[in-house]
Amino acid sequence: MMKRYVTKTVTTLSLAGLMTASAVASVTMEKRQVPTPAGVSSSFAAIVDQKVYSMGIPTPSTTEEWLTAREMFDAPQAKVAIEAAERLGVNYERKSFAGVDTYFVTPKNVDSQYQDRWLVHIHGGAFVFGGDDAALREAIWMADGLNAKVISVNYRQPPEHPFPAAIDDAVAVWKELMKTQPAEKTAIFGTSAGGNLTLATTLKLKELELPLPGALFAGTPATDLKETSDSWITLQGLDPLGSRDGLIEAAFDVYAGETPLDNPLLSPVYGDVHDFPPTILISGTRDLLLSDTVRMHRTLRANNVDAELHIYDGQSHGDYIQGLIHDFPESDDAMAELSRFFENHLK
Amino acid sequence: MMKRYVTKTVTTLSLAGLMTASAVASVTMEKRQVPTPAGVSSSFAAIVDQKVYSMGIPTPSTTEEWLTAREMFDAPQAKVAIEAAERLGVNYERKSFAGVDTYFVTPKNVDSQYQDRWLVHIHGGAFVFGGDDAALREAIWMADGLNAKVISVNYRQPPEHPFPAAIDDAVAVWKELMKTQPAEKTAIFGTSAGGNLTLATTLKLKELELPLPGALFAGTPATDLKETSDSWITLQGLDPLGSRDGLIEAAFDVYAGETPLDNPLLSPVYGDVHDFPPTILISGTRDLLLSDTVRMHRTLRANNVDAELHIYDGQSHGDYIQGLIHDFPESDDAMAELSRFFENHLK
Repeated sequence: MMKRYVTKTVTTLSLAGLMTASAVASVTMEKRQVPTPAGVSSSFAAIVDQKVYSMGIPTPSTTEEWLTAREMFDAPQAKVAIEAAERLGVNYERKSFAGVDTYFVTPKNVDSQYQDRWLVHIHGGAFVFGGDDAALREAIWMADGLNAKVISVNYRQPPEHPFPAAIDDAVAVWKELMKTQPAEKTAIFGTSAGGNLTLATTLKLKELELPLPGALFAGTPATDLKETSDSWITLQGLDPLGSRDGLIEAAFDVYAGETPLDNPLLSPVYGDVHDFPPTILISGTRDLLLSDTVRMHRTLRANNVDAELHIYDGQSHGDYIQGLIHDFPESDDAMAELSRFFENHLK
Repeated sequence: MMKRYVTKTVTTLSLAGLMTASAVASVTMEKRQVPTPAGVSSSFAAIVDQKVYSMGIPTPSTTEEWLTAREMFDAPQAKVAIEAAERLGVNYERKSFAGVDTYFVTPKNVDSQYQDRWLVHIHGGAFVFGGDDAALREAIWMADGLNAKVISVNYRQPPEHPFPAAIDDAVAVWKELMKTQPAEKTAIFGTSAGGNLTLATTLKLKELELPLPGALFAGTPATDLKETSDSWITLQGLDPLGSRDGLIEAAFDVYAGETPLDNPLLSPVYGDVHDFPPTILISGTRDLLLSDTVRMHRTLRANNVDAELHIYDGQSHGDYIQGLIHDFPESDDAMAELSRFFENHLK
């Protein structure tokens, strides 16, 4: 049914309708003041108004500087996670599993469908940050929101352990889990670098001809570490993540080590995702990784993967997880989509 | 399963993780040069590089000025449409149907599933433009791409005929068509103002307790004529549509007439979309109506409507329709999604 059309004219069509050819290689966005988004809940608007648009972490160059930066990044997140666990009655146990450091996270009440099942979490944090207790933040949000049991992979990180250590750890956990769990009833999920690793681990499982998960959740995943996707530039200034230049680019490089950045296990948007499990992707219109997310959605759809895209207006990178500490309907809505998606596909 | 969390702290969590409270009501986006998107096809990149970022139409204030502006807007689009019809062998016949001016558009080959069915098209053009032969542009793109028969509603427009004339015309066509067609096998579709009217007409059909379509396609719909959704501001400079200030806002006002802009038939994002048909929405990361589109998607999902969102990286308002005259894979991909969606739901 699909056809190719012959290009007959260079007239650019749009609502404008009046455009004529005029080659430009870039466009100028003028400076502007952007008010709080009009289309979000009042409770999320209050969160937007409290944001500080700076990471406040200098770009490291030595191993020691990376470890200092990691401590700066992780400490407040770990504190938030541990307080949330206590407040919500979520239990967590740190233990070695298949020789990998992990957290077993169990909510106060486990839903009947999750009684004998574990969801696998791969934390975010630009590959170099977000481990140890900080990893619990999203794990707790999901465990509590879904009433599901979560194994969070506290994977080895650079600069000590660059690619592919993280993926190797996730694969080891998966193989061990498969001794007692049906793959089709198990999901893998993560946000940001964790979304990347969710996709990359699944590519690796395919390569190893291991059973694939029943579903994936890739939250605002970094899917192209080589090219700078458009929204990194267009949305700069709207996202507390700041910029790809500096810290983030350095983190991608120290994670990749000697491996070319367009390797699909580093940049899953270039991967062969044929036969991938159903995948749900979440991003926001103020998310620097919006382009990475929608590009991955197109790659999945082009391979006939059952992939769903949910975009929240005015949200920056990973904002939905703020539901862990703030009460706002958009976070509940995201959790409701995840709940439904897993319920439909993990069976 | 959903819970409400108690807000315990105002610390803002994100990848940054280090944010503290600091109330701001707006953020500053600095001036920047934005290169051609990295993640698009080379053929679409060439289209981006040819765009001119100006409507070139002054904002009218009198009826005469509106009619002059309409002529400026419509003439080149009509030319493109008629040339495309000839090139693609698409036939069109203008006729009165239920007393409404319409075009019956038939492709060279009609797919077996569309032999005895018509899809209803409601054209875009900020409510005041895009009628007569210009309306054929999207109708031809769809008729040819789906191998389907299309009735395009050449609805009455402001300033002569403000709201609700357009919706009344679409409803009249629908009622007439229902005398020979099963509703569940008929879709309504449109882009921009046509996306708005697709949704508004369906709200009106609900209100009238008439049978609803089997599926909707709302392409980058204007869903909030009252509030300025975020992307109108954040993405300004990236979309040839230009700005909401001036021509577009004036067009919304002259369309609405005396009716408050938050009336759901003007701003469907505020509508009661419970029991709406399955709906597919398409937008782009450089589309000034990205926020309007994703907000509508959330409204539909919150009412458990089977609604799908597809976002194309680097695309501005309605770029996918450029597949009518340019050969680029993203337009074919959008058509493939539409084809699959209608095939799944119109039965």
